[in-house]
Amino acid sequence: MEPGDAARLGLGRAARALPPRLLLLPLLLGRGLRTAAAASSSGAAAEDSSAMEELATEKEAEESHRQDSVSLLTFILLLTLTILTIWLFKHRRVRFLHETGLAMIYGLIVGVILRYGTPATSGHDKSLSCTQEDRAFSTLLVNVSGKFFEYTLKGEISPGKINSVEQNDMLRKVTFDPEVFFNILLPPIIFHAGYSLKKRHFFRNLGSILAYAFLGTAVSCFIIGNLMYGVVKLMKIVGQLSDKFYYTDCLFFGAIISATDPVTVLAIFNELHADVDLYALLFGESVLNDAVAIVLSSSIVAYQPAGLNTHAFDAAAFFKSVGIFLGIFSGSFTMGAVTGVVTALVTKFTKLHCFPLLETALFFLMSWSTFLLAEACGFTGVVAVLFCGITQAHYTYNNLSVESRSRTKQLFEVLHFLAENFIFSYMGLALFTFQKHVFSPVFIIGAFVAIFLGRAAHIYPLSFFLNLGRRHKIGWNFQHMMMFSGLRGAMAFALAIRDTASYARQMMFTTTLLIVFFTVWIIGGGTTPMLSWLNIRVGVDPDQDPPPNNDSFQVLQGDGPDSATGNRTKQESAWLFRLWYSFDHNYLKPILTHSGPPLTTTLPAWCGLLARCLTSPQVYDNQEPLREEDSDFILTEGDLTLTYGDSTVTANGSSGSHTASTSLEGGRRTKSSSEEVLERDLGMGDQKVSSRGTRLVFPLDDNA
Amino acid sequence: MEPGDAARLGLGRAARALPPRLLLLPLLLGRGLRTAAAASSSGAAAEDSSAMEELATEKEAEESHRQDSVSLLTFILLLTLTILTIWLFKHRRVRFLHETGLAMIYGLIVGVILRYGTPATSGHDKSLSCTQEDRAFSTLLVNVSGKFFEYTLKGEISPGKINSVEQNDMLRKVTFDPEVFFNILLPPIIFHAGYSLKKRHFFRNLGSILAYAFLGTAVSCFIIGNLMYGVVKLMKIVGQLSDKFYYTDCLFFGAIISATDPVTVLAIFNELHADVDLYALLFGESVLNDAVAIVLSSSIVAYQPAGLNTHAFDAAAFFKSVGIFLGIFSGSFTMGAVTGVVTALVTKFTKLHCFPLLETALFFLMSWSTFLLAEACGFTGVVAVLFCGITQAHYTYNNLSVESRSRTKQLFEVLHFLAENFIFSYMGLALFTFQKHVFSPVFIIGAFVAIFLGRAAHIYPLSFFLNLGRRHKIGWNFQHMMMFSGLRGAMAFALAIRDTASYARQMMFTTTLLIVFFTVWIIGGGTTPMLSWLNIRVGVDPDQDPPPNNDSFQVLQGDGPDSATGNRTKQESAWLFRLWYSFDHNYLKPILTHSGPPLTTTLPAWCGLLARCLTSPQVYDNQEPLREEDSDFILTEGDLTLTYGDSTVTANGSSGSHTASTSLEGGRRTKSSSEEVLERDLGMGDQKVSSRGTRLVFPLDDNA
Repeated sequence: MEPGDAARLGLGRAARALPPRLLLLPLLLGRGLRTAAAASSSGAAAEDSSAMEELATEKEAEESHRQDSVSLLTFILLLTLTILTIWLFKHRRVRFLHETGLAMIYGLIVGVILRYGTPATSGHDKSLSCTQEDRAFSTLLVNVSGKFFEYTLKGEISPGKINSVEQNDMLRKVTFDPEVFFNILLPPIIFHAGYSLKKRHFFRNLGSILAYAFLGTAVSCFIIGNLMYGVVKLMKIVGQLSDKFYYTDCLFFGAIISATDPVTVLAIFNELHADVDLYALLFGESVLNDAVAIVLSSSIVAYQPAGLNTHAFDAAAFFKSVGIFLGIFSGSFTMGAVTGVVTALVTKFTKLHCFPLLETALFFLMSWSTFLLAEACGFTGVVAVLFCGITQAHYTYNNLSVESRSRTKQLFEVLHFLAENFIFSYMGLALFTFQKHVFSPVFIIGAFVAIFLGRAAHIYPLSFFLNLGRRHKIGWNFQHMMMFSGLRGAMAFALAIRDTASYARQMMFTTTLLIVFFTVWIIGGGTTPMLSWLNIRVGVDPDQDPPPNNDSFQVLQGDGPDSATGNRTKQESAWLFRLWYSFDHNYLKPILTHSGPPLTTTLPAWCGLLARCLTSPQVYDNQEPLREEDSDFILTEGDLTLTYGDSTVTANGSSGSHTASTSLEGGRRTKSSSEEVLERDLGMGDQKVSSRGTRLVFPLDDNA
Repeated sequence: MEPGDAARLGLGRAARALPPRLLLLPLLLGRGLRTAAAASSSGAAAEDSSAMEELATEKEAEESHRQDSVSLLTFILLLTLTILTIWLFKHRRVRFLHETGLAMIYGLIVGVILRYGTPATSGHDKSLSCTQEDRAFSTLLVNVSGKFFEYTLKGEISPGKINSVEQNDMLRKVTFDPEVFFNILLPPIIFHAGYSLKKRHFFRNLGSILAYAFLGTAVSCFIIGNLMYGVVKLMKIVGQLSDKFYYTDCLFFGAIISATDPVTVLAIFNELHADVDLYALLFGESVLNDAVAIVLSSSIVAYQPAGLNTHAFDAAAFFKSVGIFLGIFSGSFTMGAVTGVVTALVTKFTKLHCFPLLETALFFLMSWSTFLLAEACGFTGVVAVLFCGITQAHYTYNNLSVESRSRTKQLFEVLHFLAENFIFSYMGLALFTFQKHVFSPVFIIGAFVAIFLGRAAHIYPLSFFLNLGRRHKIGWNFQHMMMFSGLRGAMAFALAIRDTASYARQMMFTTTLLIVFFTVWIIGGGTTPMLSWLNIRVGVDPDQDPPPNNDSFQVLQGDGPDSATGNRTKQESAWLFRLWYSFDHNYLKPILTHSGPPLTTTLPAWCGLLARCLTSPQVYDNQEPLREEDSDFILTEGDLTLTYGDSTVTANGSSGSHTASTSLEGGRRTKSSSEEVLERDLGMGDQKVSSRGTRLVFPLDDNA
């Protein structure tokens, strides 16, 4: 090798020195090649043929780089167009089509143009038959006439497909790695969902939301899976199925399609200020069932029965799957909660709030690290990010400076907006640019029926059982609305596109795409008429309204015999939440934020030193009531009148050790006294116990 | 191929169906492989050995994914640590070390740990010798015992390096593709620089800034290049040089090291509210010379003399390089300005400001599209982004809603902060993790001397010539401060790391790294003492202060004979700016924003219809003075007293055609009358002409 080659090798060694491991934008690669080629050209002296080759490679790289930029530009222009049309729609108060539906339509149009409007170009693949190896390696060094080239494994392709690989460069360029959706676009969407959760209404309906999200999704997945298995059997008989389609595939389909995403409906709710409890139920369910669907689908994938008959039922494998579900879910939950708590502690004990920029950056980094931490530990980053968002909103948010509060909200709002619209316009695009669609009318019709039945089998029975335990029943109109709002969106798409290797998966992907289109357009457009048809009240401000009274619910009364059982169920199920609430209020909030009663009053006396260290001085000074968002925390689901304020306690709390012993005493009788209050509240009907003070120092004796 | 294989092939076909073109996070790839492997396992029946292989691949992919997450986590923790320490430093008012210096130190520490603390693991490379081909293809299909695998070309490596490729996975993981810096991290930094430009002071000193940036950088590049060529010659004689080092390499080094980045100094200026004109000079110079350095370095790379002696001077190639410089620079400038103008028009003519979220998203997308547009057309995205930022700040910013103004500022502030600290901590890390350092003491010492001399040869003579034309001279203390503030930072690093293929480039990279370390630590720490030693006034609020009076400059008086020439030079050079100002004020601002005089008054009468369409109704209604930031535009450099307001004209402007003819008339005598005012101002000394009105309706006759 001549010394002059050193320059000419260009990118070769440069790339070797710094392998593009973490983030390989071919945009960058193309650029790099171009630069290196340009750099290399300066050293090229003789060897005309090799110089010609270099030039050809340079041209190719430049062309590829140009195309990358153009394809990204296409998406940006798509989004820009969407934004402008959204504005026009909002401006003219058009409600029959939501922005996500709009993004899909624009995506469709651009997809058609790209598919039929751009010329097909030939690829530059070269086939080598190096058959002396018996396995594939992740990196390959190829000796091409004395020069060594490094190749990285992209994947295996079936021999039949070698000649049918996509020939259209532009179509290839606009096709993203499916994992981009999972690792780049979903996290901000999900984090924003957690961070912007309207806590008060969410916690008020926590039990119902959890039931809908966990039980409901499982039921829906199981029912859809079984129905689809029937459809698949039918297709086999009719001869419509050309490849394998297993029972686990059907269940997998059930899992991915069970993730509802009523973004359209909720946007309209928000705009019309529809009923806050219905909003909380729908929003909470859709947020949590996204997490459930992810973990459920990976558990189904992990279901590997032993032995030869790989698709028969195997108890051991089933329980392993259940174990995986629980493990991944709780692990991800823990990760998210822990990073949230750490951020809360850091923001509490440093005076970072004097520097909003630093605070915002820290908040962003910590939230992102949740994702990476979970992925590094083998959990699901997206799920961890959701719970991190909820924790951040519940604790960290209180410690932030006013500027950082709006900064963080706005930052994630923009990220969420861009990511969501990108996904929806990509969906529109994918209908025409994705090259392996398997359209099966029977399967598609079957799927529509199945998701309808799955949703019905999940909403109505669960609502019935929940109503047994709720004082404020979920009315029929609410149930119908929830049934109606079973849209499928970004999460179903991301789960479906993640693996499109097999025939079954391709069919699922195509069907999912069509279901998303249909539900977003039709159901999204029908929300406003549906709301008025179901007599669901609108015009409620979700942030400002006082806890609604009984009469604001339209269908409320559980009939005679139920109500007695109802009260008992409520009190039993509420026990756990009461425990959690008092723990959160007495220990977590004071430790993690500047609000709540001073720890010196809630911790036992022998923890005095620790308590004094952990309690922030603001707690003692802070006499004015805290903002409603922080301070309102509803004790039990359905228990609307017991609104706890965090701040009034501090009036008592400032008097040191005396108060500490009082609250200790109070702590021991928390459970009984809170039940007393509930009973009294029930008995006295309208006389609300809405005085703002914590449970423990509530002057029960003075009242008696 | 059996049907069961379909599932087992897993990612192969999935990746094939959706080739990861646009964004290839191996984080994602690993994840994808894992999912696919997991999915595939469910289909695996027989073939035990192949199943074992699958399992091994799965394990490998999982491990790789885990490592990717861990390495990103490392960076996030580094940044978090940096943020916390920055807070501590700000809290304790420590000024001897800036945050960027801090980030580098933490990077260094982590680099040492990674280098010496992690075990070396063996790579998984496999060498194939398929010598039947005579060129390398970008994609390779390899037939491995009947299965086809697709490989993509990563680059060429020299035969000698095959066995010495990095063995430590962790070091590989923390090493980024150099193009990441150019395409992901620099754009937000540069855009923020343009967007946060303090326009008033920038335009007041525009001539000097342009001179420093263009002439200064060229002079500095040429001097450093020549000095370094001398050093290289010396090293050859002494026998310290083991590989080729051409004159063009030296010039290239001159170009990359001429990009100053006094981020530390400016941060301290900001904190101490140091003199605004000095700030503007330093900031403007560093912003523009980044752009100049990028284009200059690619022009030098593009310098390809014909014939065999490739490193001799060739006039044709030289002029081609100059042409490339001018072409790329003006092209990028145009791209940036055009997207800025388009955004301004869109935000002006839609009522998007009712929806700050949409507005912010649009602003973000349009700014990003500048980068892609420039790259797609073969220009330099980073340079385009800079001018886009300036245009956005000058026009679009005025059309945004109040909320969007703070949102966009804050968004880019956070992105800029994160990107900058990331680059600086990566620099610290690279000192130990980059594996191809070439430390050459002679070269390093030579480089330090050269940049000192280069900076001196650029600041002092240029300042002398500029002072001939400036009414408000750049004093000696300012010159010394500018000399002292010649730090090198992110841009020099990004340019140096872009190509580390050859020996010469590796030596440059190592030297650049050390220069950045030294200048950031030593000079950054010495800024505060230097300011007080040079008697530069502090405590000036750069946003609020009125145009400073003469006495606020410490060294002002150009001595006797100069001042006459000075005035003439000023008046001549100011002519272009006056023309630009009146064009901007009368046509561009009214067309692109809601401010300025109505077009109906500034355009000729026959354009009436067009003028009425383009003029926003606000202009007529808007009687109160605009915000200072928009309305202040200093006519000529050094001309401090002529502050033009945009708004007063509208009082006259509302009376239609009469005013139009008046201003037309005024337009014809713009130049002369403004000169009159200047003269008068000079003559009368203290009696400032600071009444807020445009040039054209300035009531000269009433005053006379």
